[in-house]
Amino acid sequence: MRLRNKPWAEDYLRKHDTVVDIDGTHAKKMSEWFDKTQPIYIEVGSGMGQFITELASQHPEVNFVALERDKNVMIRVLDKVLEKQLQNIKLICNDAMELTDYFEDGEVDRVYLNFSDPWPKKRHAKRRLTYHSFLALYKAILKEEGEIHFKTDNRGLFAYSLESMSQFGMYFTKINLNLHDEDDEDNIETEYERKFADKGSRIYRMEAKFH
Amino acid sequence: MRLRNKPWAEDYLRKHDTVVDIDGTHAKKMSEWFDKTQPIYIEVGSGMGQFITELASQHPEVNFVALERDKNVMIRVLDKVLEKQLQNIKLICNDAMELTDYFEDGEVDRVYLNFSDPWPKKRHAKRRLTYHSFLALYKAILKEEGEIHFKTDNRGLFAYSLESMSQFGMYFTKINLNLHDEDDEDNIETEYERKFADKGSRIYRMEAKFH
Repeated sequence: MRLRNKPWAEDYLRKHDTVVDIDGTHAKKMSEWFDKTQPIYIEVGSGMGQFITELASQHPEVNFVALERDKNVMIRVLDKVLEKQLQNIKLICNDAMELTDYFEDGEVDRVYLNFSDPWPKKRHAKRRLTYHSFLALYKAILKEEGEIHFKTDNRGLFAYSLESMSQFGMYFTKINLNLHDEDDEDNIETEYERKFADKGSRIYRMEAKFH
Repeated sequence: MRLRNKPWAEDYLRKHDTVVDIDGTHAKKMSEWFDKTQPIYIEVGSGMGQFITELASQHPEVNFVALERDKNVMIRVLDKVLEKQLQNIKLICNDAMELTDYFEDGEVDRVYLNFSDPWPKKRHAKRRLTYHSFLALYKAILKEEGEIHFKTDNRGLFAYSLESMSQFGMYFTKINLNLHDEDDEDNIETEYERKFADKGSRIYRMEAKFH
Protein backbone atom coordinates (compact mmCIF):
# COMPACT_ATOMS: atom_id res chain seq x y z
CA MET A 1 0.00 0.00 0.00
CA ARG A 2 1.49 3.33 -1.05
CA LEU A 3 0.15 6.68 -0.01
CA ARG A 4 1.32 10.10 -1.13
CA ASN A 5 4.55 11.16 0.53
CA LYS A 6 3.99 13.31 3.59
CA PRO A 7 7.15 15.19 4.62
CA TRP A 8 5.77 15.71 8.14
CA ALA A 9 5.16 11.99 8.70
CA GLU A 10 8.52 11.25 10.31
CA ASP A 11 8.31 14.16 12.74
CA TYR A 12 4.79 13.16 13.70
CA LEU A 13 5.85 9.57 14.36
CA ARG A 14 8.91 10.69 16.36
CA LYS A 15 6.74 12.87 18.53
CA HIS A 16 4.94 9.71 19.64
CA ASP A 17 7.97 7.65 20.55
CA THR A 18 6.11 6.04 23.45
CA VAL A 19 4.18 4.15 20.76
CA VAL A 20 6.39 4.18 17.66
CA ASP A 21 9.95 2.90 17.24
CA ILE A 22 11.72 4.32 14.18
CA ASP A 23 15.37 3.80 15.06
CA GLY A 24 15.33 0.38 16.65
CA THR A 25 15.52 1.87 20.15
CA HIS A 26 13.57 -1.06 21.59
CA ALA A 27 15.32 -3.77 19.59
CA LYS A 28 15.55 -6.98 21.67
CA LYS A 29 13.72 -5.14 24.45
CA MET A 30 10.19 -5.24 23.06
CA SER A 31 8.62 -7.12 25.98
CA GLU A 32 10.01 -4.58 28.47
CA TRP A 33 8.48 -1.74 26.47
CA PHE A 34 4.96 -2.87 27.33
CA ASP A 35 3.23 -2.11 30.63
CA LYS A 36 2.21 -5.71 31.17
CA THR A 37 3.94 -9.01 30.58
CA GLN A 38 1.56 -10.97 28.37
CA PRO A 39 1.58 -12.86 25.03
CA ILE A 40 2.85 -10.97 21.97
CA TYR A 41 1.03 -11.02 18.63
CA ILE A 42 2.62 -9.18 15.72
CA GLU A 43 1.32 -8.14 12.32
CA VAL A 44 3.87 -7.99 9.52
CA GLY A 45 2.86 -5.32 7.02
CA SER A 46 0.01 -3.80 8.97
CA GLY A 47 -1.06 -1.32 6.29
CA MET A 48 -3.43 1.26 7.73
CA GLY A 49 -3.94 -0.75 10.88
CA GLN A 50 -7.68 -1.42 10.89
CA PHE A 51 -7.13 -5.09 11.68
CA ILE A 52 -4.53 -4.90 14.43
CA THR A 53 -6.01 -1.91 16.27
CA GLU A 54 -9.43 -3.57 16.33
CA LEU A 55 -7.85 -6.80 17.57
CA ALA A 56 -5.87 -4.89 20.21
CA SER A 57 -8.98 -3.18 21.54
CA GLN A 58 -10.77 -6.55 21.74
CA HIS A 59 -7.85 -8.27 23.47
CA PRO A 60 -6.32 -6.21 26.27
CA GLU A 61 -4.79 -9.47 27.58
CA VAL A 62 -2.40 -9.54 24.60
CA ASN A 63 0.45 -7.20 23.60
CA PHE A 64 0.44 -6.27 19.91
CA VAL A 65 3.18 -5.06 17.60
CA ALA A 66 2.49 -3.63 14.14
CA LEU A 67 5.38 -3.69 11.67
CA GLU A 68 5.08 -1.37 8.69
CA ARG A 69 7.98 0.12 6.74
CA ASP A 70 6.13 2.97 5.04
CA LYS A 71 5.98 6.00 7.30
CA ASN A 72 3.18 7.56 5.24
CA VAL A 73 1.09 4.50 6.02
CA MET A 74 2.24 4.16 9.63
CA ILE A 75 0.75 7.53 10.59
CA ARG A 76 -2.68 6.04 9.87
CA VAL A 77 -1.98 3.24 12.32
CA LEU A 78 -0.75 5.73 14.91
CA ASP A 79 -3.90 7.83 14.52
CA LYS A 80 -6.04 4.78 15.26
CA VAL A 81 -3.95 3.84 18.30
CA LEU A 82 -4.27 7.37 19.70
CA GLU A 83 -7.97 7.63 18.90
CA LYS A 84 -8.75 4.31 20.60
CA GLN A 85 -6.32 5.12 23.45
CA LEU A 86 -4.78 1.66 23.18
CA GLN A 87 -2.15 0.78 25.79
CA ASN A 88 -1.28 -2.69 24.47
CA ILE A 89 0.14 -1.92 21.04
CA LYS A 90 3.52 -0.70 19.75
CA LEU A 91 4.51 0.22 16.21
CA ILE A 92 7.78 -0.55 14.46
CA CYS A 93 8.80 1.34 11.32
CA ASN A 94 10.99 -1.15 9.53
CA ASP A 95 11.25 -3.90 6.99
CA ALA A 96 10.06 -7.47 7.69
CA MET A 97 13.61 -8.65 6.99
CA GLU A 98 14.74 -6.94 10.21
CA LEU A 99 12.27 -8.79 12.47
CA THR A 100 14.92 -10.81 14.28
CA ASP A 101 16.65 -7.57 15.30
CA TYR A 102 13.64 -6.73 17.46
CA PHE A 103 12.58 -10.00 19.07
CA GLU A 104 14.38 -12.68 21.03
CA ASP A 105 14.13 -16.27 19.87
CA GLY A 106 10.75 -17.67 20.91
CA GLU A 107 9.45 -14.36 22.22
CA VAL A 108 6.42 -14.09 19.92
CA ASP A 109 3.18 -16.07 20.20
CA ARG A 110 1.55 -15.31 16.88
CA VAL A 111 2.34 -13.69 13.52
CA TYR A 112 -0.41 -12.18 11.38
CA LEU A 113 -0.02 -11.67 7.64
CA ASN A 114 -2.98 -9.90 6.05
CA PHE A 115 -3.33 -9.13 2.35
CA SER A 116 0.41 -9.07 1.80
CA ASP A 117 1.72 -7.89 -1.55
CA PRO A 118 1.35 -10.91 -3.89
CA TRP A 119 4.40 -10.07 -6.04
CA PRO A 120 2.87 -12.13 -8.87
CA LYS A 121 5.98 -12.33 -11.05
CA LYS A 122 8.05 -15.45 -10.46
CA ARG A 123 11.30 -13.49 -10.31
CA HIS A 124 9.86 -11.51 -7.38
CA ALA A 125 8.93 -14.62 -5.40
CA LYS A 126 11.60 -13.92 -2.80
CA ARG A 127 9.80 -10.71 -1.82
CA ARG A 128 6.61 -12.55 -0.85
CA LEU A 129 6.17 -12.62 2.93
CA THR A 130 5.71 -16.41 2.79
CA TYR A 131 8.99 -17.02 0.92
CA HIS A 132 11.21 -19.42 2.85
CA SER A 133 13.65 -16.73 4.04
CA PHE A 134 10.78 -14.91 5.79
CA LEU A 135 9.41 -18.17 7.21
CA ALA A 136 12.84 -18.72 8.78
CA LEU A 137 12.54 -15.35 10.55
CA TYR A 138 9.05 -16.13 11.87
CA LYS A 139 10.24 -19.53 13.05
CA ALA A 140 13.12 -17.94 14.95
CA ILE A 141 11.03 -15.43 16.88
CA LEU A 142 7.95 -17.63 17.41
CA LYS A 143 7.43 -19.91 20.39
CA GLU A 144 7.41 -23.62 19.60
CA GLU A 145 3.62 -23.71 19.59
CA GLY A 146 3.43 -20.29 17.90
CA GLU A 147 1.10 -19.74 14.97
CA ILE A 148 1.02 -17.85 11.70
CA HIS A 149 -2.41 -16.55 10.68
CA PHE A 150 -2.59 -15.59 7.03
CA LYS A 151 -5.39 -13.97 5.04
CA THR A 152 -5.50 -12.87 1.40
CA ASP A 153 -7.83 -12.36 -1.53
CA ASN A 154 -5.05 -13.36 -3.93
CA ARG A 155 -5.54 -16.94 -5.14
CA GLY A 156 -2.03 -17.25 -6.53
CA LEU A 157 -0.40 -16.01 -3.34
CA PHE A 158 -2.50 -18.37 -1.24
CA ALA A 159 -1.61 -21.42 -3.35
CA TYR A 160 2.05 -20.38 -3.35
CA SER A 161 2.00 -19.95 0.43
CA LEU A 162 0.50 -23.42 1.00
CA GLU A 163 3.32 -24.88 -1.09
CA SER A 164 6.08 -22.76 0.43
CA MET A 165 4.98 -23.25 4.04
CA SER A 166 4.43 -27.01 3.75
CA GLN A 167 7.81 -27.39 2.01
CA PHE A 168 9.41 -25.48 4.88
CA GLY A 169 7.98 -28.05 7.31
CA MET A 170 4.85 -26.24 8.43
CA TYR A 171 1.38 -27.71 8.80
CA PHE A 172 -2.08 -26.21 8.67
CA THR A 173 -4.53 -26.37 11.54
CA LYS A 174 -7.32 -24.42 9.85
CA ILE A 175 -7.94 -23.55 6.22
CA ASN A 176 -10.82 -21.54 4.76
CA LEU A 177 -11.07 -21.41 0.96
CA ASN A 178 -13.94 -18.92 1.01
CA LEU A 179 -13.93 -17.15 4.35
CA HIS A 180 -17.04 -15.03 3.90
CA ASP A 181 -19.07 -18.04 2.83
CA GLU A 182 -18.28 -19.89 6.05
CA ASP A 183 -19.15 -19.09 9.63
CA ASP A 184 -16.37 -17.28 11.42
CA GLU A 185 -17.71 -14.80 13.92
CA ASP A 186 -14.21 -13.99 15.13
CA ASN A 187 -13.10 -12.63 11.77
CA ILE A 188 -11.89 -9.03 11.97
CA GLU A 189 -11.87 -7.38 8.58
CA THR A 190 -9.11 -5.22 7.14
CA GLU A 191 -9.77 -2.22 4.92
CA TYR A 192 -8.92 -4.27 1.83
CA GLU A 193 -10.96 -7.22 2.86
CA ARG A 194 -14.21 -5.26 3.03
CA LYS A 195 -13.55 -3.76 -0.38
CA PHE A 196 -12.67 -7.06 -2.04
CA ALA A 197 -15.41 -9.06 -0.39
CA ASP A 198 -17.95 -6.46 -1.50
CA LYS A 199 -16.74 -6.95 -5.06
CA GLY A 200 -17.44 -10.67 -4.70
CA SER A 201 -13.80 -11.76 -4.40
CA ARG A 202 -13.04 -14.81 -2.32
CA ILE A 203 -11.05 -14.36 0.85
CA TYR A 204 -8.67 -17.23 1.74
CA ARG A 205 -7.45 -17.85 5.27
CA MET A 206 -5.17 -20.27 7.07
CA GLU A 207 -3.63 -20.97 10.47
CA ALA A 208 -0.26 -22.70 10.42
CA LYS A 209 2.40 -24.05 12.78
CA PHE A 210 5.92 -25.42 12.54
CA HIS A 211 6.48 -29.19 12.86
CA MET B 1 -20.73 -43.44 -7.08
CA ARG B 2 -23.52 -46.02 -6.90
CA LEU B 3 -25.12 -47.67 -9.90
CA ARG B 4 -28.06 -50.05 -9.94
CA ASN B 5 -27.10 -53.56 -8.84
CA LYS B 6 -26.32 -55.85 -11.77
CA PRO B 7 -26.40 -59.51 -10.75
CA TRP B 8 -24.29 -60.45 -13.77
CA ALA B 9 -21.48 -57.99 -12.92
CA GLU B 10 -19.37 -60.45 -10.92
CA ASP B 11 -19.52 -63.16 -13.58
CA TYR B 12 -18.59 -60.65 -16.24
CA LEU B 13 -15.60 -59.41 -14.24
CA ARG B 14 -14.47 -62.98 -13.47
CA LYS B 15 -14.57 -63.84 -17.15
CA HIS B 16 -11.89 -61.18 -17.65
CA ASP B 17 -9.47 -62.29 -14.98
CA THR B 18 -6.51 -61.33 -17.14
CA VAL B 19 -7.49 -57.71 -16.37
CA VAL B 20 -9.56 -57.88 -13.17
CA ASP B 21 -8.57 -59.25 -9.76
CA ILE B 22 -11.57 -59.95 -7.51
CA ASP B 23 -10.12 -62.44 -5.02
CA GLY B 24 -6.69 -60.98 -4.37
CA THR B 25 -5.05 -63.56 -6.66
CA HIS B 26 -2.30 -61.09 -7.55
CA ALA B 27 -1.78 -59.71 -4.05
CA LYS B 28 1.90 -58.80 -3.55
CA LYS B 29 2.54 -59.92 -7.14
CA MET B 30 1.12 -56.93 -8.99
CA SER B 31 4.33 -56.01 -10.83
CA GLU B 32 4.68 -59.58 -12.17
CA TRP B 33 1.15 -59.45 -13.54
CA PHE B 34 2.08 -56.78 -16.09
CA ASP B 35 3.83 -57.57 -19.38
CA LYS B 36 6.47 -54.91 -18.84
CA THR B 37 8.43 -53.74 -15.80
CA GLN B 38 7.76 -50.01 -15.60
CA PRO B 39 6.52 -47.43 -13.05
CA ILE B 40 3.17 -48.10 -11.38
CA TYR B 41 0.50 -45.40 -11.00
CA ILE B 42 -2.68 -46.32 -9.15
CA GLU B 43 -6.05 -44.62 -8.83
CA VAL B 44 -7.92 -45.20 -5.59
CA GLY B 45 -11.66 -45.08 -6.22
CA SER B 46 -11.56 -45.00 -9.99
CA GLY B 47 -15.31 -44.64 -10.51
CA MET B 48 -16.23 -45.30 -14.12
CA GLY B 49 -12.63 -45.10 -15.22
CA GLN B 50 -12.65 -42.22 -17.71
CA PHE B 51 -9.59 -40.67 -16.11
CA ILE B 52 -7.35 -43.68 -15.68
CA THR B 53 -8.13 -45.34 -18.99
CA GLU B 54 -7.41 -42.10 -20.85
CA LEU B 55 -4.17 -41.69 -18.90
CA ALA B 56 -3.21 -45.32 -19.61
CA SER B 57 -3.73 -44.89 -23.33
CA GLN B 58 -1.57 -41.72 -23.31
CA HIS B 59 1.18 -43.35 -21.26
CA PRO B 60 2.10 -46.85 -22.45
CA GLU B 61 5.40 -46.41 -20.56
CA VAL B 62 3.54 -46.65 -17.22
CA ASN B 63 1.60 -49.52 -15.63
CA PHE B 64 -1.75 -48.48 -14.17
CA VAL B 65 -3.93 -50.03 -11.48
CA ALA B 66 -7.52 -48.96 -10.86
CA LEU B 67 -8.95 -49.76 -7.44
CA GLU B 68 -12.74 -49.70 -7.15
CA ARG B 69 -14.79 -51.67 -4.66
CA ASP B 70 -18.17 -51.49 -6.40
CA LYS B 71 -18.49 -54.27 -9.00
CA ASN B 72 -21.40 -52.47 -10.69
CA VAL B 73 -19.07 -49.55 -11.32
CA MET B 74 -16.02 -51.65 -12.15
CA ILE B 75 -17.70 -53.17 -15.21
CA ARG B 76 -17.69 -49.68 -16.74
CA VAL B 77 -13.94 -49.46 -16.24
CA LEU B 78 -13.49 -52.93 -17.73
CA ASP B 79 -15.55 -51.98 -20.79
CA LYS B 80 -13.26 -49.01 -21.44
CA VAL B 81 -10.12 -51.12 -21.02
CA LEU B 82 -11.43 -53.70 -23.51
CA GLU B 83 -12.65 -51.09 -25.97
CA LYS B 84 -9.31 -49.26 -25.97
CA GLN B 85 -7.43 -52.59 -25.95
CA LEU B 86 -5.16 -51.35 -23.17
CA GLN B 87 -2.33 -53.67 -22.15
CA ASN B 88 -0.95 -51.52 -19.33
CA ILE B 89 -3.80 -51.45 -16.86
CA LYS B 90 -5.16 -53.87 -14.25
CA LEU B 91 -8.26 -53.55 -12.10
CA ILE B 92 -8.65 -54.48 -8.44
CA CYS B 93 -12.09 -54.94 -6.93
CA ASN B 94 -11.51 -54.11 -3.29
CA ASP B 95 -11.57 -51.48 -0.60
CA ALA B 96 -8.86 -48.80 -0.28
CA MET B 97 -8.17 -50.13 3.21
CA GLU B 98 -6.75 -53.32 1.66
CA LEU B 99 -4.16 -51.53 -0.51
CA THR B 100 -1.17 -52.83 1.42
CA ASP B 101 -2.31 -56.38 0.75
CA TYR B 102 -1.63 -55.87 -2.93
CA PHE B 103 1.57 -53.86 -3.11
CA GLU B 104 5.02 -54.26 -1.61
CA ASP B 105 6.50 -51.37 0.37
CA GLY B 106 7.76 -48.72 -2.05
CA GLU B 107 6.41 -50.47 -5.14
CA VAL B 108 4.14 -47.64 -6.32
CA ASP B 109 5.25 -44.39 -8.01
CA ARG B 110 2.07 -42.36 -7.86
CA VAL B 111 -1.40 -42.40 -6.26
CA TYR B 112 -4.32 -40.59 -7.89
CA LEU B 113 -7.39 -39.55 -5.91
CA ASN B 114 -10.10 -37.99 -8.06
CA PHE B 115 -13.39 -36.63 -6.78
CA SER B 116 -13.39 -38.89 -3.76
CA ASP B 117 -16.49 -39.04 -1.60
CA PRO B 118 -16.28 -35.90 0.64
CA TRP B 119 -18.05 -37.49 3.63
CA PRO B 120 -18.98 -33.99 4.84
CA LYS B 121 -20.11 -34.97 8.34
CA LYS B 122 -17.36 -34.68 10.95
CA ARG B 123 -18.16 -38.09 12.43
CA HIS B 124 -17.44 -39.62 9.00
CA ALA B 125 -14.02 -37.96 8.66
CA LYS B 126 -12.22 -41.28 9.03
CA ARG B 127 -13.83 -42.50 5.79
CA ARG B 128 -12.29 -39.69 3.73
CA LEU B 129 -9.50 -40.99 1.50
CA THR B 130 -7.16 -38.30 2.87
CA TYR B 131 -7.75 -39.28 6.53
CA HIS B 132 -4.46 -40.12 8.24
CA SER B 133 -5.06 -43.88 8.27
CA PHE B 134 -5.30 -43.87 4.47
CA LEU B 135 -2.26 -41.59 4.15
CA ALA B 136 -0.30 -44.18 6.13
CA LEU B 137 -1.24 -46.83 3.55
CA TYR B 138 -0.17 -44.64 0.62
CA LYS B 139 3.08 -43.83 2.37
CA ALA B 140 3.80 -47.52 2.86
CA ILE B 141 3.33 -48.54 -0.78
CA LEU B 142 4.80 -45.38 -2.37
CA LYS B 143 8.45 -44.94 -3.28
CA GLU B 144 10.29 -42.29 -1.28
CA GLU B 145 9.86 -39.73 -4.05
CA GLY B 146 6.34 -40.98 -4.83
CA GLU B 147 3.50 -38.51 -5.28
CA ILE B 148 -0.17 -38.17 -4.51
CA HIS B 149 -2.22 -36.27 -7.10
CA PHE B 150 -5.58 -35.17 -5.80
CA LYS B 151 -8.47 -33.45 -7.55
CA THR B 152 -11.91 -32.49 -6.27
CA ASP B 153 -14.72 -30.00 -6.72
CA ASN B 154 -15.50 -30.17 -3.00
CA ARG B 155 -14.10 -27.12 -1.20
CA GLY B 156 -14.49 -28.63 2.26
CA LEU B 157 -12.74 -31.85 1.30
CA PHE B 158 -9.88 -29.93 -0.30
CA ALA B 159 -9.34 -27.73 2.76
CA TYR B 160 -9.57 -30.78 5.02
CA SER B 161 -7.04 -32.65 2.87
CA LEU B 162 -4.52 -29.79 2.97
CA GLU B 163 -4.77 -29.83 6.76
CA SER B 164 -4.68 -33.60 7.13
CA MET B 165 -1.82 -34.15 4.69
CA SER B 166 0.37 -31.36 6.06
CA GLN B 167 -0.25 -32.59 9.62
CA PHE B 168 0.81 -36.06 8.51
CA GLY B 169 4.14 -34.60 7.32
CA MET B 170 3.39 -34.13 3.64
CA TYR B 171 4.20 -31.11 1.51
CA PHE B 172 2.69 -29.70 -1.63
CA THR B 173 4.62 -29.24 -4.85
CA LYS B 174 1.72 -27.85 -6.90
CA ILE B 175 -1.62 -26.40 -5.90
CA ASN B 176 -4.39 -25.10 -8.17
CA LEU B 177 -7.32 -23.39 -6.46
CA ASN B 178 -9.28 -23.04 -9.71
CA LEU B 179 -7.96 -25.58 -12.16
CA HIS B 180 -10.08 -24.66 -15.17
CA ASP B 181 -9.15 -21.00 -14.83
CA GLU B 182 -5.43 -21.78 -15.07
CA ASP B 183 -3.42 -23.27 -17.90
CA ASP B 184 -2.92 -26.97 -17.53
CA GLU B 185 -2.87 -28.73 -20.87
CA ASP B 186 -2.06 -32.04 -19.22
CA ASN B 187 -5.31 -32.13 -17.30
CA ILE B 188 -7.37 -35.22 -18.05
CA GLU B 189 -10.97 -34.79 -17.01
CA THR B 190 -13.11 -37.30 -15.18
CA GLU B 191 -16.82 -37.76 -15.85
CA TYR B 192 -17.67 -35.74 -12.74
CA GLU B 193 -15.20 -33.01 -13.50
CA ARG B 194 -16.80 -32.17 -16.85
CA LYS B 195 -20.23 -32.05 -15.27
CA PHE B 196 -19.19 -29.87 -12.32
CA ALA B 197 -17.01 -27.55 -14.36
CA ASP B 198 -19.88 -27.01 -16.78
CA LYS B 199 -22.03 -25.96 -13.84
CA GLY B 200 -19.39 -23.36 -12.94
CA SER B 201 -17.99 -25.21 -9.91
CA ARG B 202 -14.34 -24.72 -9.12
CA ILE B 203 -12.03 -27.68 -9.45
CA TYR B 204 -9.19 -27.87 -6.89
CA ARG B 205 -6.01 -29.84 -7.53
CA MET B 206 -2.79 -30.62 -5.69
CA GLU B 207 0.37 -32.68 -5.97
CA ALA B 208 1.92 -33.82 -2.70
CA LYS B 209 4.88 -35.77 -1.34
CA PHE B 210 6.04 -37.14 1.99
CA HIS B 211 8.82 -35.34 3.88
